Amino acid sequence: MKALVFSNKLEMVDYPVPKITDDEALVKISLAGICNTDREIMKGYKDFHGVLGHEWVGKVEKAADKSLIGERVVGSINIGCGKCKYCLSGMEKHCPDRTCIGITGHDGCFAEYLSIPLKNLYKVDSDISDEEALFTEPLAAAISAVKDASVKENESVLIMGDGRLAYLIYLGLIYFAPNVKNITVKGKHPEKLSNFTSAEKILSFSDDREYDVIFEATGSDSGMEEALSHVSRRGRVIVKTTRAGKCEMDLNKIVVNEIKLIGSRCGDFKDALYVLKQHPYLPQTMFFPLEDYLTAFSIPSSKAFKVGFKIATI
Amino acid sequence: MKALVFSNKLEMVDYPVPKITDDEALVKISLAGICNTDREIMKGYKDFHGVLGHEWVGKVEKAADKSLIGERVVGSINIGCGKCKYCLSGMEKHCPDRTCIGITGHDGCFAEYLSIPLKNLYKVDSDISDEEALFTEPLAAAISAVKDASVKENESVLIMGDGRLAYLIYLGLIYFAPNVKNITVKGKHPEKLSNFTSAEKILSFSDDREYDVIFEATGSDSGMEEALSHVSRRGRVIVKTTRAGKCEMDLNKIVVNEIKLIGSRCGDFKDALYVLKQHPYLPQTMFFPLEDYLTAFSIPSSKAFKVGFKIATI
Repeated sequence: MKALVFSNKLEMVDYPVPKITDDEALVKISLAGICNTDREIMKGYKDFHGVLGHEWVGKVEKAADKSLIGERVVGSINIGCGKCKYCLSGMEKHCPDRTCIGITGHDGCFAEYLSIPLKNLYKVDSDISDEEALFTEPLAAAISAVKDASVKENESVLIMGDGRLAYLIYLGLIYFAPNVKNITVKGKHPEKLSNFTSAEKILSFSDDREYDVIFEATGSDSGMEEALSHVSRRGRVIVKTTRAGKCEMDLNKIVVNEIKLIGSRCGDFKDALYVLKQHPYLPQTMFFPLEDYLTAFSIPSSKAFKVGFKIATI
Repeated sequence: MKALVFSNKLEMVDYPVPKITDDEALVKISLAGICNTDREIMKGYKDFHGVLGHEWVGKVEKAADKSLIGERVVGSINIGCGKCKYCLSGMEKHCPDRTCIGITGHDGCFAEYLSIPLKNLYKVDSDISDEEALFTEPLAAAISAVKDASVKENESVLIMGDGRLAYLIYLGLIYFAPNVKNITVKGKHPEKLSNFTSAEKILSFSDDREYDVIFEATGSDSGMEEALSHVSRRGRVIVKTTRAGKCEMDLNKIVVNEIKLIGSRCGDFKDALYVLKQHPYLPQTMFFPLEDYLTAFSIPSSKAFKVGFKIATI
């Protein structure tokens, strides 16, 4: 099969179709999305060798349970050991021995086929389109960040960034924190900011304005420092971006202003599928054939809401 | 009066006795304690010029309210504007325009006299000794850290460090989280570790051990990185140490392991005085005359539980 394999560099190669066990399904990939984590892996964030990619939608082609065949599915990315305290308490995403599709120890979805444990699969409702379903994984993560922030009704919220992650956090707030009214989005692109219909939109900080809860979704190195400068005393900063390398931080600000820094990663696919069923507005996406991966990856994440691959029409 | 004044370097000088307004008291200092923040100020942590020091116990010598004269008192360190949203909600310690005794814009206590607003004063019960009362400020801060951590009964707690801050956090846990049984202390000094009577004591980390809540009280640059390596997924790290300069941090760990980093600073003096009234065991302290400040500051914070100045017998 055709596959985009990363091993120090990304290449399109002819790769064996994955074999499956009785606990796995073989999925034919329809659409796959490029995530910022993929770009970070290509910069050295993880020592990953294999098929890249972890955002996808597809159709079950093989499975021991024949009733699954033909189902349109998405899949969660963490595969735990099933035995540790994290797996046993439903926190498979924190299993120390987990593999992670397209990120750690398991081939990903930038290929014609993917093998995945049955327990990771979620059926996609027929009224959710493939394009919408592709957002299940990042939207689940964004909703998880919103839940971790526990925003109270009278608190002011700032989303830093106007890209995809920022927009999905905004959707998460609308559906999972509907009482929160005071939402501001800070971005660089007026045309992107216009997507955040009900939020106040700003292009730069005013010095004297503070926010009780800040979602740092810029993906830039300076984002954290800016967030710490504009969060209220005893406020919260939610960090979602993973990136290669370390970050210089003024811990004193965190101590003196008694800030909470909250790390957040993956979320619950059921939450995301619930939101996608309401058909929220999702800005424009761009899809390329797998062969055009150089073009696809050359589009800066700031230039398109979602860039991905159209691998098959199913 | 004699005073230790910092202005790029620390010097003993003859300094005017502070004048007071009707809202202030003039306090004659009996004992004053050296805090790590004083050492950091001397390294450039704050651009402070004036009398150093913010831990003290003394007696009111002058005040418009004559009933206060002769009272033995301690005092909280933050002086807010009284008008902003923080001051009006009881969070004077977060007033953006606050001064802070011996730290920002207000002379401190390494002197024979100190002026302080009446609202910052707390009377010291007669059965609390001067030596005990000197711990009010740092103990209040440690208790605040314990409260901010919200440790649940079945969670495992690690205190990193065996010095004064670590010990005061331990006292905070004993009095404000009495149901928490699983407390480990990691230190370098067996003789200091022995003070933590009811805790498990370790000299080094074992690789596979994780803790749900970690109090980082080492004061060392590597402390944060170690804490992030040994905190449970979705665990909490409580940061209390302020220091000069920035710190390199692997934000990915915070994101991927969904860690909460909780900054904590000053606490409620009433909480600390409540604990001190129970006469907890406090390890040995060393006091010097103000003139011997070079000797006092030459004793590394790792070598004594508390180093301070005996300024007057009252």
